[in-house]
Amino acid sequence: MSDILLRNDTDGIATLTLNAPDRLNALSDAMLAALQGQIDALEKDNATRVVVLKGAGKAFCAGHDLKEMQAGRRAADGGQAYFTDLFTRCARVMTGLMRLPQPVIAQVHGIATAAGCQLVASCDMAVAAQGTRFGVNGVNIGLFCSTPMVALTRSIPRKQAFEMLTTGQFVDANRAADLGLINRAVPPDTLEAETRTLAEIVARKLGAAVKLGKRTFYDQIEMEIGAAYAHAGGVMVENMLWRDTNEGISAFLEKRPPDWS
Amino acid sequence: MSDILLRNDTDGIATLTLNAPDRLNALSDAMLAALQGQIDALEKDNATRVVVLKGAGKAFCAGHDLKEMQAGRRAADGGQAYFTDLFTRCARVMTGLMRLPQPVIAQVHGIATAAGCQLVASCDMAVAAQGTRFGVNGVNIGLFCSTPMVALTRSIPRKQAFEMLTTGQFVDANRAADLGLINRAVPPDTLEAETRTLAEIVARKLGAAVKLGKRTFYDQIEMEIGAAYAHAGGVMVENMLWRDTNEGISAFLEKRPPDWS
Amino acid sequence: MSDILLRNDTDGIATLTLNAPDRLNALSDAMLAALQGQIDALEKDNATRVVVLKGAGKAFCAGHDLKEMQAGRRAADGGQAYFTDLFTRCARVMTGLMRLPQPVIAQVHGIATAAGCQLVASCDMAVAAQGTRFGVNGVNIGLFCSTPMVALTRSIPRKQAFEMLTTGQFVDANRAADLGLINRAVPPDTLEAETRTLAEIVARKLGAAVKLGKRTFYDQIEMEIGAAYAHAGGVMVENMLWRDTNEGISAFLEKRPPDWS
Repeated sequence: MSDILLRNDTDGIATLTLNAPDRLNALSDAMLAALQGQIDALEKDNATRVVVLKGAGKAFCAGHDLKEMQAGRRAADGGQAYFTDLFTRCARVMTGLMRLPQPVIAQVHGIATAAGCQLVASCDMAVAAQGTRFGVNGVNIGLFCSTPMVALTRSIPRKQAFEMLTTGQFVDANRAADLGLINRAVPPDTLEAETRTLAEIVARKLGAAVKLGKRTFYDQIEMEIGAAYAHAGGVMVENMLWRDTNEGISAFLEKRPPDWS
Repeated sequence: MSDILLRNDTDGIATLTLNAPDRLNALSDAMLAALQGQIDALEKDNATRVVVLKGAGKAFCAGHDLKEMQAGRRAADGGQAYFTDLFTRCARVMTGLMRLPQPVIAQVHGIATAAGCQLVASCDMAVAAQGTRFGVNGVNIGLFCSTPMVALTRSIPRKQAFEMLTTGQFVDANRAADLGLINRAVPPDTLEAETRTLAEIVARKLGAAVKLGKRTFYDQIEMEIGAAYAHAGGVMVENMLWRDTNEGISAFLEKRPPDWS
Repeated sequence: MSDILLRNDTDGIATLTLNAPDRLNALSDAMLAALQGQIDALEKDNATRVVVLKGAGKAFCAGHDLKEMQAGRRAADGGQAYFTDLFTRCARVMTGLMRLPQPVIAQVHGIATAAGCQLVASCDMAVAAQGTRFGVNGVNIGLFCSTPMVALTRSIPRKQAFEMLTTGQFVDANRAADLGLINRAVPPDTLEAETRTLAEIVARKLGAAVKLGKRTFYDQIEMEIGAAYAHAGGVMVENMLWRDTNEGISAFLEKRPPDWS
């Protein structure tokens, strides 16, 4: 484990902590590499059932590392190759969170801006402390948040996304919950506990069912509805044929807890 | 009419009542067949202008019939062929509601869970009694609600859908209204009257216009916007050329009621 | 400039005023032609950074000009060619607003009905006076709002859109804000100032970034997510290579205002 991304595992819940608090946990090359490394590891990690992603220090994540990006301009091509690679790596991390077998919950506080807001939108669920500010504010410095927009416009309504993107203004956690960007806003002193409770609820389910369900969630969501039903129907059949699902349904009908050991 | 699905017709409004209250109106093979039978009949039924779907007893619908599904495992293939057929029949009913010429309104009380929640999401509109609980809770017994997810994720925002699906937790009627899963939550003692009022408002419109509009609603919603406008523009032309639309517009301009007899 | 559509330009903000108050600013042939003319002009107008669209008199816009449409029936084909052309011209205006390089803000008061509601949904953002009524109420006269539906169903949740379309009932500005049809409802006496403030915030950003961002917003929103990221990533690279973005980021890092002169 790199120091820039801490990992703590308890009871099947892996907590990843962005740990560059002096840079507001910016998504530097090192941070993106560490995240990709954990995504690759978690993909094969059958012991982990849920992932929580949070930030150390004052903020969740303030987006890309602007100093590092500016340094990239010194190359002979003015940075073109570096930027192309950077946004490819960043998109790979964002979509990697969606493709992970485990549900990923963002635990958000302070600020989540630009690619940091994209990170929240890219997690499957999010809980935020009241007072947290969310923004896709690259427009303020002349860099429109085009890649964060991909995740944002798939989470909240169009007019509200357009406003955030072109005004660069923040929305607070309560508004973010109303818009659908996060699942809920909670008092700051309960953020850790509330996120943990949500993670534990999901971690107690039959892991294979959650894994199959998450994959199917994103597979079917962009399909035409007939194709989506054909696909999801096949998934239901597969799921029904598992020994553990047979046991789960039998236990329910017999009013006893399932034996999923 | 089978006893398992009652039908009552008054003033162009067909009310279908799921009538297996001892099984919380589960979508058994018999119930699905009865629903499909009514869908087939309504498709050709020009006298019916609006359909209301409700449940007898304590609940709207608790989803699939788990006992019947477990019995299906006794086949030589462990149930594979039966389950494949079951989910195909179920998806046919759900999409059949969308393809019916008449708007379908769910009148929901008690609980609407798993495929019962899918049934609500698959109706064009829904009114629910305050206190009604909605859930896609198959994950609790190891059977992820993959097919209900198809309807749910096309009705409510992503993060909220993901939470319902992976936690198995219920949302109440007021929250369901906020999320867009239903049109509104009303006091339980006004549920019947409020649903009836909504049905009557729609039933009083020009039936051909409602029918054309409903079909176009689902046809255009999955198209790229340019194709959607091309399609909807053609529909508008067709609609304008009807005698009754000519009469409707003339009557409006002359400040008199239209003669649509 | 035609009298039917007024234009006022101040500080890079073009205000277009629908000016047929005696007809509730109906989208007549003349009004559509005037709007298309302004769209064509604005497309090449580098001095304009934001467009505000409002209506003179009691209403924002009441939709198509029904008298003119009825007159179209007198042609040998009963109006078929005229209606086909009309809906093509109307869709061209509606999608033209989305394709304009500048963000377009609807400033809405009174009523916005049928194609007038479509106009609100087709603008990038909208601010409305409390008390404004929104409706897609063509169904009341036998002409289902199929083309307004294209814009509406891309802005608000399905069940709520279906209800508006088939009941013909109005929603007020506060409800429209909750549904996502507008950005916010404000007291009537602050409508002009609130819209102006929003326009000025956007007008102060780097124009090229806003322009690139708006185009990318609609380009990526209908793509599969992988394609959307590939496209948006390329846009980010392009944006990063601009002199003004280099300056914007440098200024931010040096805690000084950017020199975008």
